[in-house]
Amino acid sequence: MKKTIGKSLALYPTPLVVVGAMIDKKPNYLLVGHLGIMGHDHVMISLASNHYTNRGIKENRALTINLVDRSMLKKADYVGSVSGYKIDKSNVFQYHIGITRTPIIDESPVVMECTVDDIYETSGFENYICKITAVHAEDNILNETGKLDYSLLKPVLFEMPTYQYLLTGNVIGQCLKLEK
Amino acid sequence: MKKTIGKSLALYPTPLVVVGAMIDKKPNYLLVGHLGIMGHDHVMISLASNHYTNRGIKENRALTINLVDRSMLKKADYVGSVSGYKIDKSNVFQYHIGITRTPIIDESPVVMECTVDDIYETSGFENYICKITAVHAEDNILNETGKLDYSLLKPVLFEMPTYQYLLTGNVIGQCLKLEK
Repeated sequence: MKKTIGKSLALYPTPLVVVGAMIDKKPNYLLVGHLGIMGHDHVMISLASNHYTNRGIKENRALTINLVDRSMLKKADYVGSVSGYKIDKSNVFQYHIGITRTPIIDESPVVMECTVDDIYETSGFENYICKITAVHAEDNILNETGKLDYSLLKPVLFEMPTYQYLLTGNVIGQCLKLEK
Repeated sequence: MKKTIGKSLALYPTPLVVVGAMIDKKPNYLLVGHLGIMGHDHVMISLASNHYTNRGIKENRALTINLVDRSMLKKADYVGSVSGYKIDKSNVFQYHIGITRTPIIDESPVVMECTVDDIYETSGFENYICKITAVHAEDNILNETGKLDYSLLKPVLFEMPTYQYLLTGNVIGQCLKLEK
């Protein structure tokens, strides 16, 4: 029997990422769990309008999306806990600069370099509609055909109702090929 | 060492949902894995423009987002494998009609009733920007404070690179409260 629980955002868990952007020639980072996939060529990153990071993204129209695995979770949690207005986060991660002149976190298993195509505003939020320029992935999480294998990668996921981090679980089937 | 793997959509895994809509007074269903959260009051559902389901959503400006758990995965996979243009899917799930006159799947552990606020178009896709009207959840996946507990719910997740369904894994930490 179902209970009605108001207008909760219930569409979890979502992949947890660190968004990277350059501000005044230095990298800055922000932990983000509200995001999505639009069609086959765009991804969306949703940021409260008052974040420091937004300044860099808007100036350069570019950002990186760095997937978080368990080994980098403490640092990822840290960059989500302090603001770039007060604290210089440029030295938290090892990084190098990519094609789009944005910071690629070396510790992240998968990094998407993106350009910003559009900004869609909702109440108090800027939702960045991004085009993918290049994806960089660690060798050991690619399968023999060169595709990402999420059962090896096991990204950390986020859900807001209880503010928990969860691991990606086991594979339980193949899309459109389930036993009927 | 990272390898560059082109312009892959790498932002997985995503929650797997069945989108429900009414078409000609009958419910119709579609399996969706491309979606997202925008700010604190909107969710986004991304559908290829030629789906049958889109007709009903556009006529009624309303839809349901039915989260998929393991017990309903076979039926969910089925509604993703056949088109409403050819097959009547109205009897696949037990359902009842909600406040927004859209079908609430009884087998789904969490159902969000939404109205469509806007449609954002990307190449070949309609991305439905939705406002949440009401969320209905099974009693046994709520914690003592009435919040959704994803470690009990364990939604099925989707990733496109290898077309796999994955379970939600274990809790590994609390956001902003990790041991430093």
